[in-house]
Amino acid sequence: MKVLIIGSVAAGTSVAAKARRNNEEIEIVIYEKDSDISYSGCGLPYYIGEDYIQREDLTPRNPSWFKKRFNLDIKVLHEVLSVDHEKKEVSVKNLSSGEEFIDKYDKLVFATGASPIIPPIENLENDFTFMLRNVNQADKVSEFVEQNKPKNAVIIGAGYIGLELAENLKHIGIDVTIVERGSLPMPNLDKDVAVHIAKELRNNTVTFMGNESVKGIIYNDEEKLVQLESGKTIATDFVVVCVGVKPVTQLAQNIGVDIGYKGAISVDKFMQTNINDVYAVGDCALSYSAIDNNPIWVPLGSTANKMGRICGDHITGGTLSFQGILGTGIFKLFDLSVGMTGLTEQQAIEKDYNYVVHHNYKPNQSQYLKTSKEMMIKMLADKDTGKVLGAQIVGKNGVDKRVDVIATAITFGATAEQLFHLDLAYAPPFSTTKDPVHYSGMVLNNAIKGNNQIITPQQLNANRDEFVVIDVRANHQYESAHIEGAINIPLAKIREEYKTISKEQKVVVHCNKGVSGNAAQNILLNLGFKEVYNLSGGFKNYKNVASI
Amino acid sequence: MKVLIIGSVAAGTSVAAKARRNNEEIEIVIYEKDSDISYSGCGLPYYIGEDYIQREDLTPRNPSWFKKRFNLDIKVLHEVLSVDHEKKEVSVKNLSSGEEFIDKYDKLVFATGASPIIPPIENLENDFTFMLRNVNQADKVSEFVEQNKPKNAVIIGAGYIGLELAENLKHIGIDVTIVERGSLPMPNLDKDVAVHIAKELRNNTVTFMGNESVKGIIYNDEEKLVQLESGKTIATDFVVVCVGVKPVTQLAQNIGVDIGYKGAISVDKFMQTNINDVYAVGDCALSYSAIDNNPIWVPLGSTANKMGRICGDHITGGTLSFQGILGTGIFKLFDLSVGMTGLTEQQAIEKDYNYVVHHNYKPNQSQYLKTSKEMMIKMLADKDTGKVLGAQIVGKNGVDKRVDVIATAITFGATAEQLFHLDLAYAPPFSTTKDPVHYSGMVLNNAIKGNNQIITPQQLNANRDEFVVIDVRANHQYESAHIEGAINIPLAKIREEYKTISKEQKVVVHCNKGVSGNAAQNILLNLGFKEVYNLSGGFKNYKNVASI
Repeated sequence: MKVLIIGSVAAGTSVAAKARRNNEEIEIVIYEKDSDISYSGCGLPYYIGEDYIQREDLTPRNPSWFKKRFNLDIKVLHEVLSVDHEKKEVSVKNLSSGEEFIDKYDKLVFATGASPIIPPIENLENDFTFMLRNVNQADKVSEFVEQNKPKNAVIIGAGYIGLELAENLKHIGIDVTIVERGSLPMPNLDKDVAVHIAKELRNNTVTFMGNESVKGIIYNDEEKLVQLESGKTIATDFVVVCVGVKPVTQLAQNIGVDIGYKGAISVDKFMQTNINDVYAVGDCALSYSAIDNNPIWVPLGSTANKMGRICGDHITGGTLSFQGILGTGIFKLFDLSVGMTGLTEQQAIEKDYNYVVHHNYKPNQSQYLKTSKEMMIKMLADKDTGKVLGAQIVGKNGVDKRVDVIATAITFGATAEQLFHLDLAYAPPFSTTKDPVHYSGMVLNNAIKGNNQIITPQQLNANRDEFVVIDVRANHQYESAHIEGAINIPLAKIREEYKTISKEQKVVVHCNKGVSGNAAQNILLNLGFKEVYNLSGGFKNYKNVASI
Repeated sequence: MKVLIIGSVAAGTSVAAKARRNNEEIEIVIYEKDSDISYSGCGLPYYIGEDYIQREDLTPRNPSWFKKRFNLDIKVLHEVLSVDHEKKEVSVKNLSSGEEFIDKYDKLVFATGASPIIPPIENLENDFTFMLRNVNQADKVSEFVEQNKPKNAVIIGAGYIGLELAENLKHIGIDVTIVERGSLPMPNLDKDVAVHIAKELRNNTVTFMGNESVKGIIYNDEEKLVQLESGKTIATDFVVVCVGVKPVTQLAQNIGVDIGYKGAISVDKFMQTNINDVYAVGDCALSYSAIDNNPIWVPLGSTANKMGRICGDHITGGTLSFQGILGTGIFKLFDLSVGMTGLTEQQAIEKDYNYVVHHNYKPNQSQYLKTSKEMMIKMLADKDTGKVLGAQIVGKNGVDKRVDVIATAITFGATAEQLFHLDLAYAPPFSTTKDPVHYSGMVLNNAIKGNNQIITPQQLNANRDEFVVIDVRANHQYESAHIEGAINIPLAKIREEYKTISKEQKVVVHCNKGVSGNAAQNILLNLGFKEVYNLSGGFKNYKNVASI
């Protein structure tokens, strides 16, 4: 049997390695039109910013390593021009020699990846505007920086790569302006989470221009200008376009492979396309949500690796099957980590879930340690089933841990209540006695099963007139800033002073972050108030949201 | 209804707080014979070592805070002398005034905690030997250190607290010798894990004396000597005894409450004892394993908090119930983190599991980052069900994350294969494309479902004659050190040179950490070898184990 794989970054080499692990006999050939293989695409922003990272660090494995280890042939600078599926053959061009030839296969795997979206910007092709998708493109940015010692950069697009690049450029002394169509960075996240990212950019003097799109680039010997649709212009030394990627599927489409959501190749749980003996893996292949089984497309190296291994196993008779994804992701931006898994609130609304949501501000470790930092977990659960739907987390330390714990819990259909029961590892340097994850689970469970309803700042503001707002913080905190129209009854006095308010009134209570608000809510409910909401994340969260 | 709680550290106050959250009407009284309440026992070693941690940091809440917040009465320096369960009353002594009185209750909760085990050591009572269980005891150590500027300390016992204290004393310039009955620190862990802890102590010039126990303490004006059973003596300036704790249950026993495993109070899922309206929570109460439902007793603040909340809920008509624990724990020792969850190999053997085990040496984040550090995950899975049984992890960074992910997975009965499928958060600063947890899951699953058997160094050494050992590392690595009798066939040559070995032979292959060994194993199996084992953790792990 001969396995022919098109593409050799993460997914393609995973297919090959797993197939060989399972079987010594089959022939395995990979065609890669680029010169680099098996590289870390996610490492590119670091490669540009950190001088200790060498090209070899990102591309540790060459075809000869794969030959020795796995007895397989990776032919770089070889482009597959077309596929004849009836004859089970491909026509290939050797990009070095120009020679074209035909090769046969028994199993064909598309691992063609994704390519940068090229936005319709005038004069985009010039010698100071770059994409950032592969090592060669990163090399070009690095070379430009080294030769021209630029002072300023414009990054178009505020997704993962754009933000990570912004940080890395700042580290080497370049001033950065990010231009983004959306109002905030990371448009896929909820706005009340993204606002923390915008703040981190401000704190690190990266200029963020939201609600802007680029019309064109103007340049002459004197200056280089990025021209916005709004009429503004930004003088810069160079530009990096990071507006996202799209699946590379033309070859597959040419032979009638089914294309699905977001233009990615439809595959089953074994990574098979609709055409016999043709597979697709990695960024060119469609995934599905482990929460609701709907198709999602989240191109990431971690998923590509899994798909590759499953495909290689299936080709050689194994039983592994793809289990879907949660859209888990994470990135670091200066001192901030931002992670997400499962559904955002925006997605829960679009999908019409009956959900509860909570903003949980908590230290990542025992508060008396000097290194303790606050994080914010925005978590959603399904009011009907109690199940955790998703979380977005921002903070300085320990964000990755909580994302992974929640992702693991969601995978197994955990309810909010079950989060509280988790036996997580506690010692002062690692956590608090109740971990932030426990706390989020408790609060959501109380909202689902009990009567401890939560209201978000947006929900409160949308119906402000319906509620009496009680600020239970100390007088001096209330005096320095408070929600318009809120009345101040410090928690310690609420058992007396509640009497001024009718029990029939809809009441919103809040403290600084939510805990005393919860105590006040319980007291009022136990005293017979009919409808009491605790403001999610307290005044701290309210202020953050107000800045959107 | 009146709820009377005996003890006010973690569990007791949790009972009270939850009961009040659910109900404004009931009366709640807590008697605490100590002067401090609601403190972080796990923070005590840090309190001694870090001068920025104040007493108030460990005891942030006083009775007046609880009164204001929860309308409950905490009476410190009040000792409950006896309980009359028929009459539902307790006799209490006010330790300040000497006054004794009777109080009534409807529900009684034992939250009496645990007390330090006092080992049978001669002359233990003196002014330079301390226990370390509460804030007052920690104060005494701090005072001693401040007044006497000691140069040396002996710590008796190498559990969590002893090790954490050793680090904190070193930080303030005190030389430390630890005396431990077991051969290695943390006797509850497997030896091939504990060996990494011993190494970390050596690297930080803490003297560890294993297989030793203390006979007595001798002192005069000139010197203070710790005298060991072996005849050795250690000159020291002071001694801290950290040989563990035992549940405090005398009051409960006096009224016929059932006592179980390890002397802790037997409770049901609602924390009820065998006697009506009598509960027990926290370190004095028995827990059970979420893996096999057997009783376990692991006194930790995180579990105490959960038990307290569940008890408070049940008393006030709630439905929360205890879900068992995994024995999850973690501690930091200098640069090393050590975490554990579920069963150790020793426990799996004692419980007669048909298990597979693997030692996984992997970086915590992308290897090309300067901050990348290696960790070792020792993980066990049940060969019959495929389920993950437990893990022990040592490493510099990211250990807590992997422990919590595995603990969460075990909670939901995850199989090794399911670990591989987890959609964990990947970006270079947080993980590798395949997280170490994925990798452990893959390897164990291959051992369970496939033919990729794993052998531990101990298993190999116990039956060394049965196996041909093939070292697949490069020649120069083999030359510098190798397993006695191993033959060297570098991986790249194995497809040729295998012919010198009979396919009927039992073969063990190994590389440095296990990955190339796995490749060699697959090649040999696919070439028709009948029985091929990969050495768990490769030569690196073999060397570590050899040093036990």
